This record gives sequence, C-alpha cells and structure tokens, in this order.
Amino acid sequence: MTSPAYDPNNIFAKILRNEIPSVRLYEDEHTLAFMDVMPQSPGHLLVIPKEGSRNLLDADPAVLARTMPVVQKLAVAVRQALDADGVLVTQFNELTAGQTVFHLHFHVIPRYEGVSLRPHSGQMEDIEVLKAHAEKIKAAL
Amino acid sequence: MTSPAYDPNNIFAKILRNEIPSVRLYEDEHTLAFMDVMPQSPGHLLVIPKEGSRNLLDADPAVLARTMPVVQKLAVAVRQALDADGVLVTQFNELTAGQTVFHLHFHVIPRYEGVSLRPHSGQMEDIEVLKAHAEKIKAAL
Repeated sequence: MTSPAYDPNNIFAKILRNEIPSVRLYEDEHTLAFMDVMPQSPGHLLVIPKEGSRNLLDADPAVLARTMPVVQKLAVAVRQALDADGVLVTQFNELTAGQTVFHLHFHVIPRYEGVSLRPHSGQMEDIEVLKAHAEKIKAAL
Repeated sequence: MTSPAYDPNNIFAKILRNEIPSVRLYEDEHTLAFMDVMPQSPGHLLVIPKEGSRNLLDADPAVLARTMPVVQKLAVAVRQALDADGVLVTQFNELTAGQTVFHLHFHVIPRYEGVSLRPHSGQMEDIEVLKAHAEKIKAAL
C-alpha cells in the first residue's frame, strides 16, 4: 500500500513557482491559498502547503499543524465575504478518493442554502468572476 | 453571519465524557478517534479534539494544529489496516454544509476501488463489524 513519490511537476507545484498563473488569496512563508478554477460553488478555494507532499498520507506532521490554521482563516473569510451559510472542507488522498493533483491540498467550499454543488470538472470559471470573489475574500482576511 | 454557541450536550461531548458508548481507536491528552456508527464505507472513523468548539470556524487554531497530525495518523492506519485504495477526509461547518453534530470533527473515510460511498444516515452498522474494523485499525497504529 505504498504510493508513488511526490512529483514536483504537478500543477500546484507550478503555481507555487509562478510557472502558471493563479488567482491568489493569501500567502505566508509556508502556505498559499488561491481560487479553484473549476469551483463547485462560488468562492471555492484551495489551501496548500509550500512543502511538497503527495497528499495527507506522506506529509510532514509539522506541515499539517501549520496548514490547518490557514485553512481556518480562509474558511472564516470566505464565509463572511460571500455570506455563505456553511463551509465544506475536503481533502482527497489518492485517485480512488478523488485526488487529481498530487500535491497536498485542502478544498474550502462555501455552501449556500438551497444551492447544490457543481461537479468539480468540466468548464473553467470566468477569470473575472474568480477575481471578483478573490477581492471580497481578501477584504475579509 | 454568527453561529450559535457551543452546546456541551452534543453527542460527541457525551462520547468524550463516556456518557454514551463508542468504539474507540485512539486517545491522547487532546484528541479522540472512534468509529462512525453509520459508516459511509468500511472503516469510516472520526477524529475530534477534546476541547469543545462548534466546528472549524470557531476552533482555537492551536487545537487545529494538534488535531491534524492525529487525523493523518488515523488516515494512514485505516488505509493500511483495511487495504484501502484511498482516503477521503471531510469536515462540515454548519447545517447547510452537512454538519449534524456540533462538535468539531473530521471524517476519515477509506475508499475502495469500484465501491461507492453509502449515505451517511439511516441504519447503524452492526457493533461487531465496527469492533472488528477497530481492532485492525488499532493494530496498524
């Protein structure tokens, strides 16, 4: 039950290295938060540690300990910024559990009463919509 | 966008106080892990901090930092113990996001190739099944 090693050419590693663009929300020495480009609901964002691990299973526990308070910070901010009724946090480990990018990440997904989640695939959201949500979230941080 | 205060009579607080039974997996000074009685897949377990908060949104960041390495420990153990292909971690904040017990908890849900998740409601699992899974998980800790 071993997993492949961490691959530093995954898309989130490229986002961390600014090799591909992202709509950033928050950054500190250890952590980055940015908008998910295929949001399951308005305001869906991702929090990732800068240190590379494939997922939760092979992460340094100290990295997890540093990352979760940032997940909380963003969850509180997005709820306030977009007047969400709830917040769903998900974290997938391995393909069978839904993981598609193999750099540890936490989904922070605002939930709105009566609004179903969209599938996490298919069409990318308009960049201007993502930027508008990001501005509101950053203002609430 | 404020939430009600923490209610110390929620079911997980009662589990912590041993007022109602649970199939326990792991306990330390700050954290408890036990089997979910309505598992979405075999081995579905919960990790909770002993310190009371309604959910992630009102938790002490230091509690989050202590809890996540335990979530990891249990995720690694359940994957190994039950030969799971992946592990899903979910955490719900407020009713609209699926939260039904208002004490911060992390679901650790093993995923098996080709096996769909069951709904998290309805019938309780046979206690002997839960105990058998728990023995395997504890052996892998």
